[in-house]
Amino acid sequence: MPTQLLENYTLGRWLPGGGPQQELLDASTGETIALANTEGVDYEEVLAYGRRVGNPALRKMTFHERGRMLKALAFHLQEKKEVFYELSYRSGATRADSWIDIEGGIGNLFANASLRRKFPDKPFYVEGEPVGLSKGGTFVAQHLLVPKEGVAVHINAYNFPIWGLLEKIAVNLLAGMPAVVKPAVPTAYLTEAVVREIIASGILPAGALQLVSGSGQGILDHLTYQDVVTFTGSAVTGRLLRAHPRIIEEAVPFTMEADSLNAAVLGPDARPGTPEFDLFVKEVRKEMTAKCGQKCTAIRRVLVPAELLEDVQIALGKALAQTTIGHPRAEGVRMGALAGRAQAAQFRARVQELARHTPIVYGDLDNVEIRGQDLGAHAGRGAFASPIVLRNDEPFRHLDSHEIEAFGPVVTLMPYHDLGEAVQLANLGRGSLVCSLATADAGVATEFVLGAATHHGRILVLNEEMAKESTGHGAPLPQLIHGGPGRAGGGQEMGGIRGVEHFMQRVALQGSPSMLTAITQVYQAGAQQIERDKHPFQHYFEELEIGQTYTTHRHTVTEADITNFAQVSGDNFYAHVDATSLDGTLFTGRVAHGYYILSKAAGMFVDPRKGPVLLNYGLDECRFTKPVYPGTTIGVQLTVKEKVGQEKRDAADVAKGIVRWLVTVTDETGDTVAVATILTMVKQRAQE
Amino acid sequence: MPTQLLENYTLGRWLPGGGPQQELLDASTGETIALANTEGVDYEEVLAYGRRVGNPALRKMTFHERGRMLKALAFHLQEKKEVFYELSYRSGATRADSWIDIEGGIGNLFANASLRRKFPDKPFYVEGEPVGLSKGGTFVAQHLLVPKEGVAVHINAYNFPIWGLLEKIAVNLLAGMPAVVKPAVPTAYLTEAVVREIIASGILPAGALQLVSGSGQGILDHLTYQDVVTFTGSAVTGRLLRAHPRIIEEAVPFTMEADSLNAAVLGPDARPGTPEFDLFVKEVRKEMTAKCGQKCTAIRRVLVPAELLEDVQIALGKALAQTTIGHPRAEGVRMGALAGRAQAAQFRARVQELARHTPIVYGDLDNVEIRGQDLGAHAGRGAFASPIVLRNDEPFRHLDSHEIEAFGPVVTLMPYHDLGEAVQLANLGRGSLVCSLATADAGVATEFVLGAATHHGRILVLNEEMAKESTGHGAPLPQLIHGGPGRAGGGQEMGGIRGVEHFMQRVALQGSPSMLTAITQVYQAGAQQIERDKHPFQHYFEELEIGQTYTTHRHTVTEADITNFAQVSGDNFYAHVDATSLDGTLFTGRVAHGYYILSKAAGMFVDPRKGPVLLNYGLDECRFTKPVYPGTTIGVQLTVKEKVGQEKRDAADVAKGIVRWLVTVTDETGDTVAVATILTMVKQRAQE
Repeated sequence: MPTQLLENYTLGRWLPGGGPQQELLDASTGETIALANTEGVDYEEVLAYGRRVGNPALRKMTFHERGRMLKALAFHLQEKKEVFYELSYRSGATRADSWIDIEGGIGNLFANASLRRKFPDKPFYVEGEPVGLSKGGTFVAQHLLVPKEGVAVHINAYNFPIWGLLEKIAVNLLAGMPAVVKPAVPTAYLTEAVVREIIASGILPAGALQLVSGSGQGILDHLTYQDVVTFTGSAVTGRLLRAHPRIIEEAVPFTMEADSLNAAVLGPDARPGTPEFDLFVKEVRKEMTAKCGQKCTAIRRVLVPAELLEDVQIALGKALAQTTIGHPRAEGVRMGALAGRAQAAQFRARVQELARHTPIVYGDLDNVEIRGQDLGAHAGRGAFASPIVLRNDEPFRHLDSHEIEAFGPVVTLMPYHDLGEAVQLANLGRGSLVCSLATADAGVATEFVLGAATHHGRILVLNEEMAKESTGHGAPLPQLIHGGPGRAGGGQEMGGIRGVEHFMQRVALQGSPSMLTAITQVYQAGAQQIERDKHPFQHYFEELEIGQTYTTHRHTVTEADITNFAQVSGDNFYAHVDATSLDGTLFTGRVAHGYYILSKAAGMFVDPRKGPVLLNYGLDECRFTKPVYPGTTIGVQLTVKEKVGQEKRDAADVAKGIVRWLVTVTDETGDTVAVATILTMVKQRAQE
Repeated sequence: MPTQLLENYTLGRWLPGGGPQQELLDASTGETIALANTEGVDYEEVLAYGRRVGNPALRKMTFHERGRMLKALAFHLQEKKEVFYELSYRSGATRADSWIDIEGGIGNLFANASLRRKFPDKPFYVEGEPVGLSKGGTFVAQHLLVPKEGVAVHINAYNFPIWGLLEKIAVNLLAGMPAVVKPAVPTAYLTEAVVREIIASGILPAGALQLVSGSGQGILDHLTYQDVVTFTGSAVTGRLLRAHPRIIEEAVPFTMEADSLNAAVLGPDARPGTPEFDLFVKEVRKEMTAKCGQKCTAIRRVLVPAELLEDVQIALGKALAQTTIGHPRAEGVRMGALAGRAQAAQFRARVQELARHTPIVYGDLDNVEIRGQDLGAHAGRGAFASPIVLRNDEPFRHLDSHEIEAFGPVVTLMPYHDLGEAVQLANLGRGSLVCSLATADAGVATEFVLGAATHHGRILVLNEEMAKESTGHGAPLPQLIHGGPGRAGGGQEMGGIRGVEHFMQRVALQGSPSMLTAITQVYQAGAQQIERDKHPFQHYFEELEIGQTYTTHRHTVTEADITNFAQVSGDNFYAHVDATSLDGTLFTGRVAHGYYILSKAAGMFVDPRKGPVLLNYGLDECRFTKPVYPGTTIGVQLTVKEKVGQEKRDAADVAKGIVRWLVTVTDETGDTVAVATILTMVKQRAQE
């Protein structure tokens, strides 16, 4: 393979950096793959271009448009994935390792594409319920989120050059913000390859994504308070960046996600012979060997009931002995190489530090048997390492195990004597990304989780019930927050809507209900209502106006209604049908069924004629607020609260949308007896 | 009044600080009120005590217990409020000013006490919906929040010594964390007085609240990642604290809420003679004079359509001319003094800076007529100031108006030429806490709000409809977030549940549905169900188990059912009753009403006998997932999903709780046709 000159994609063009080049090496063979430099990149211009060109294009798109863009991008990259797999071998990754990076990353695009359905088809997000601020109801509030006006700067780690790119841009793009991505240099050729495909696809608007394929020195010097910085990598670098004068000065949101000393705990019930014991050993081995242990979520500390320490040590040793190491293309290889020789040297040095007080009980720092010499794999020029197990019999005394991280295939075994000690030891990591516990005992899980939850961003409870479908200890998922307190950086990424909020500004909007309805396009109780001649069920989706209201005729509830409803539904609950049962209840007489009120309200507000309303989809938050007795006269108001367009599944599908209606049932005194939000599916007039 | 020696409340005792004392002066008379010092306070010990004694006591309480504690505290302080009003005069505050500080603060306690109802009656918070992670449903997740294990350190500003204390501790106490409060020295005597009452009341557990009544030098040196710091004050100090090595090193959550150059905008429609014009002038005047303009939310920049600038200047001048200034106890005084002479000198210096390019068009920096000399008010020794209006006719050229803040009764008038310019000018403040817009035009409001939302933590739309009930531009409210981007510090406080999250650690919990049900005490779909002999409607609240399930008999839906339901409800929607109407619909035949399915399900799962179930309270999230045609046979499962105990309103009230049930209606193929969460009120057996 010829040596490639990596390029930077800035200001809408690909250009190589000037100046002296950094060499990027094949992890197994030591060959030079690519050269990188960023000299000459004007970061001030790069950020300004993102703000000026990328930001306006994205922020005016709706969440649904942005989500569909991510979906198209995911499909596009999926088609190209074999190119990435090929290249990825050079980072020392086996095909299974690369799956995490490549398909894990593309999966993140798909997940964020789907997340659009939790957002309105608008450029902004109306968050949570309206907040009443006054007795008379004329002064209310609503929280809104809008995309920030700057650029998201992502500073990524070398272990996941593709996943790191995609999991982050998926979120900022869905939020409506452009990004500048700076991958770590050793594996920047993978990020560059994917960005090339993204740019070539033409799916993203201009300025939505820029790439700096090398040192990013100076990139933070031009940040403003509308930008966002995320950092994934070592805690030491993260702290330097967090204290950057520009980040402090401008109060730039900064999210850090750092390697941590993640623990796995064997529950006291998970004795040898139980499924949980086996699952535990398998999980520890997987976390040690996948990506050669180079995951910020990998297990580093293995906490085991003291009496089971020997058993675990033996079982783990046996499992590790089956791990074939070598060139990731070589037949039968289960564990490839570390990312490079510098990483391998650092790994070795850290393990040596750890081994001062806690002996190595499995593995050999100096010798590793490798396969694939025919493919160029070389023990000296490549970055191979043996899996290492250390043992710390006094984990409250020798604290290095909780403090020194060797970023590679290594764990330290430690004993605990009761569950309280297990919690204490897990928490001695002073903040980590994830912790797992193998147990079949709900009591053990409850005690451990509530004790350890302060120290871990994610906790996995591993047992037989979920093992087949589990994604495992090490896998951050787009639906869940990723990040932990303290050593893990104190940040939070992903987590569905929570992640998107990171790239948006929240504003508390106060005003009259009518004003807030106009701005948010969600009807706020008390806002002006619009009465039109035609029944709203005769209006197509596009024609319905927020606030459009239909006021029904009235109906006096009778005993016959209650009796008939009891017969049709079969609901003969005492309070509805037994006049002698009401002593000691909250009712003064036989009361109408709540579901009768709801059903009767529908009978009153529905226009029975065939029209654009296709079906009743469901209802949200219905409350029965006052008992209805025979003789009460009810009336209903039906108001268009919110409209959400639906995407066609295919060309033949009917164009339609979901309409959320506010239903208010009042009695003759004007009191509300029931309130609900109901959902109908309504045809669009335009059927292009 | 004798000079008081302020004390610090640390490690459970009141002690004065040693060393040289700082003098705290009466703002109107210059008399010495109190002396303060914190020398000798061992911050390492203070924090350790909070963590060791206060934290465990609070974290084991449930949200409901913590909320009731806040309520008791609010009532207690309300009884003592006249003591605080008396003392508050000494800070230069009128009674109206003190109302904001004292009753605003107590109101925050009440609001957070009520907020307990949005949380479970547990020490932790189960956040949002469960997240399915696998096709088979055996692997799921749930986000949980638990109180952090450290201490909240609140560093407060001098302008709201009581509100600042109470708005912050209300939130950390509800979250389950203890606090150390460090008020600003000039008005620390007010904070100290309130803390004395709080401690004396015995309502808080030991270690829940400590007070440092003076310089807090060194307080940050002993923070850990389980602590939280909030800062309210100047941007300059805030930046210093944010970059503190310990905050960086430990990734300590840091919330900053800084003074900002908040804008008020007169809409182009709000011409003289409109209610909005008058409301606008009144609001600007109020914001200038309340607390003598010493509010971090006060209006500093007044943006007005160019052609109305003269009108606003005249109207505002007239309004300000009616503001009587002087000793806050003196008859007729509407505006008191700045907090002290140092503050007054700084105010004067800043206005002079502003006046270099933008002339003073109202007020006089050198002369101010004051009342209350008989009470000791003294123009030289006190800290009185005249309201000042500056005018900047070229607001895109002279940028000082957007950058230099004088913390006192001052605003700068500026013209804009179209709404786009108004947005740009508002945003030139580079991030502020709040912005208001006076307009009756929903189009103007929408354009402005969506353009300015990136730059302001709160936006108030002022018009006639809400004016009577409005709490005004300057009032942060406990239900709404408080904080803004950029210059305002980038933080967020309060905002209901959002504020509480700040003092808790979020963890993504993964496992099997049964395991997550056991830990969260909320039933997760797919978890193990418990069948018991008695119908669940015959169990008292305490006896119901999460996961307890009742499986009903089955019922074959007939045409008669649909017809009868149409008659009882009056719902003759075409898809239910007109067999000729189904062309082009999603239905293959007459379909049963969704509400029939729901009603019939109730008829099947309800036990009609009188028992502990008192009433049907409502339902949440009901979805009709598959059409039900005549001939379909349905069955129902009713499962206890969650239980929330209710507080008795009074001794005579029945002890009861709300039970949330999962209702799943399936057909003969096992498909779900409807799903809902319903709410019933259930008696407790124990009626103590």
